[in-house]
Amino acid sequence: MSETLKGTIWLLSDPEIVDRMVKKIISNRFSDYIGLRYTSIGLGVVEAMLPMQDNLRQQNDFLHGGVTATLCDIVAGFAAYTLLPVTEQVVTAEIKVSYYHPAIGDVFYAKGWVEKPGKKLHFCESEVYTLNDGVRKVIAKATASMIVIR
Amino acid sequence: MSETLKGTIWLLSDPEIVDRMVKKIISNRFSDYIGLRYTSIGLGVVEAMLPMQDNLRQQNDFLHGGVTATLCDIVAGFAAYTLLPVTEQVVTAEIKVSYYHPAIGDVFYAKGWVEKPGKKLHFCESEVYTLNDGVRKVIAKATASMIVIR
Amino acid sequence: MSETLKGTIWLLSDPEIVDRMVKKIISNRFSDYIGLRYTSIGLGVVEAMLPMQDNLRQQNDFLHGGVTATLCDIVAGFAAYTLLPVTEQVVTAEIKVSYYHPAIGDVFYAKGWVEKPGKKLHFCESEVYTLNDGVRKVIAKATASMIVIR
Amino acid sequence: MSETLKGTIWLLSDPEIVDRMVKKIISNRFSDYIGLRYTSIGLGVVEAMLPMQDNLRQQNDFLHGGVTATLCDIVAGFAAYTLLPVTEQVVTAEIKVSYYHPAIGDVFYAKGWVEKPGKKLHFCESEVYTLNDGVRKVIAKATASMIVIR
Repeated sequence: MSETLKGTIWLLSDPEIVDRMVKKIISNRFSDYIGLRYTSIGLGVVEAMLPMQDNLRQQNDFLHGGVTATLCDIVAGFAAYTLLPVTEQVVTAEIKVSYYHPAIGDVFYAKGWVEKPGKKLHFCESEVYTLNDGVRKVIAKATASMIVIR
Repeated sequence: MSETLKGTIWLLSDPEIVDRMVKKIISNRFSDYIGLRYTSIGLGVVEAMLPMQDNLRQQNDFLHGGVTATLCDIVAGFAAYTLLPVTEQVVTAEIKVSYYHPAIGDVFYAKGWVEKPGKKLHFCESEVYTLNDGVRKVIAKATASMIVIR
Repeated sequence: MSETLKGTIWLLSDPEIVDRMVKKIISNRFSDYIGLRYTSIGLGVVEAMLPMQDNLRQQNDFLHGGVTATLCDIVAGFAAYTLLPVTEQVVTAEIKVSYYHPAIGDVFYAKGWVEKPGKKLHFCESEVYTLNDGVRKVIAKATASMIVIR
Repeated sequence: MSETLKGTIWLLSDPEIVDRMVKKIISNRFSDYIGLRYTSIGLGVVEAMLPMQDNLRQQNDFLHGGVTATLCDIVAGFAAYTLLPVTEQVVTAEIKVSYYHPAIGDVFYAKGWVEKPGKKLHFCESEVYTLNDGVRKVIAKATASMIVIR
């Protein structure tokens, strides 16, 4: 079985929203394919981690920028998702990812949050970082517009 | 063996650049992991295709936006790469991807090109599209800055 | 009186939309303040020109990047506007401007178009360019999301 | 004389850098044209304010999005500028501005900072906000790449 939601800390109080999130997340096969795990899911904030594996490397052995973009998109999108009533969902309208450092490390962490919620659009941000002796190094930062669909 | 470069049409005349491209491409494990194949590689223009597979789907069964972003990044980055002398390489400084349509289809096509080359930065664009009876439908479009590294 | 709409070529057939465009444009004081003139307004495509003036220069005497961004925003936004029924309007959700060349010249031209229309969002693009002996030099290129408001 | 630098709080200790900043700022005519004033200039952080005036309004009487983009660009760019040795300068490679709220108010504030400095590129961010009874409302947020020129 998928380890995507193993050990996830849930900070949402509404069981209907939790239920819906679980269904969405476990039916997202690509996040499972790259080995993403959700570490915590709260109202407007989602955190995840990704253990490095060889399949995710680019030509210089770093984590591929496309995987970094995927992490940014997923945690930002699901952060927006936690804010929605059950009749609505979000899709990414656009995302811009800025790459600050080469993605070197054994584990990558991603955090996404809703910077400015709205009726039609949620403006979200996210970052991917590594941890070395507790020191957080931001590898990439993203800003995204998530459009609300009824 | 990887099928990444099987059937690729090479439009580059300099064997040294071809040789370097081949090495870069076959050492990019993530593009292989998602099943990307280069269809043509020319000066400042790179095209690829990606057969759909279940591992690449998101929760609504569409191609995951992170994969779409990966395609955009790869074809734009390698398009810039074809323009460089052997002493230089590029890395993505930033990329913005706009999602026009849900990524539904059996095969996705990606095209990347250098919109404005420069000494320090190459401004590139790329798009991901599907083909239905020869009709091209653009799923996503990206603009990226590729920074030159010596 | 403002010269903003002096000599503008109208390519719109619906007089109600023309009327609405005229009202919007002449009530936009900032475009008048910088001296922008609309050269043509058609369905989904808007073109404008801006004569250089000293007030618009930045520290190196080029056209200020903020003015360039303003041009990009205006022609993209009004391009989206031409597609809307009278009950709707658009606002810019986000715009990304890439600066290809220093903005040197006596006259700047801007062209904006709707790349992908939608019910909720119009994805637009625009560019600012100069003309030298008929040769078009793109100074900046933008991609924007215009959100539809009812 | 320009009021651009009237009352500015300087948080820079190197008089050579201050001197250079002053020259750059006062030769930037467009910021003067819109009435921008620098409130504080420190290492990697620049703040400014802009009193509303009718010339800066768009068709709904809000501050024009192009002015907001200009503010974002200026404070981000000069924030990067404070970090440079005298032999170098920066130009904006690209900027993305997200518009969170209609720009309504009598005074607008802008803050720009270097999020991730680099040898070739400074990744900067900036925001434009209003203050109501001390409550900060972010109108727009920007991310920009500033390229270093020698």
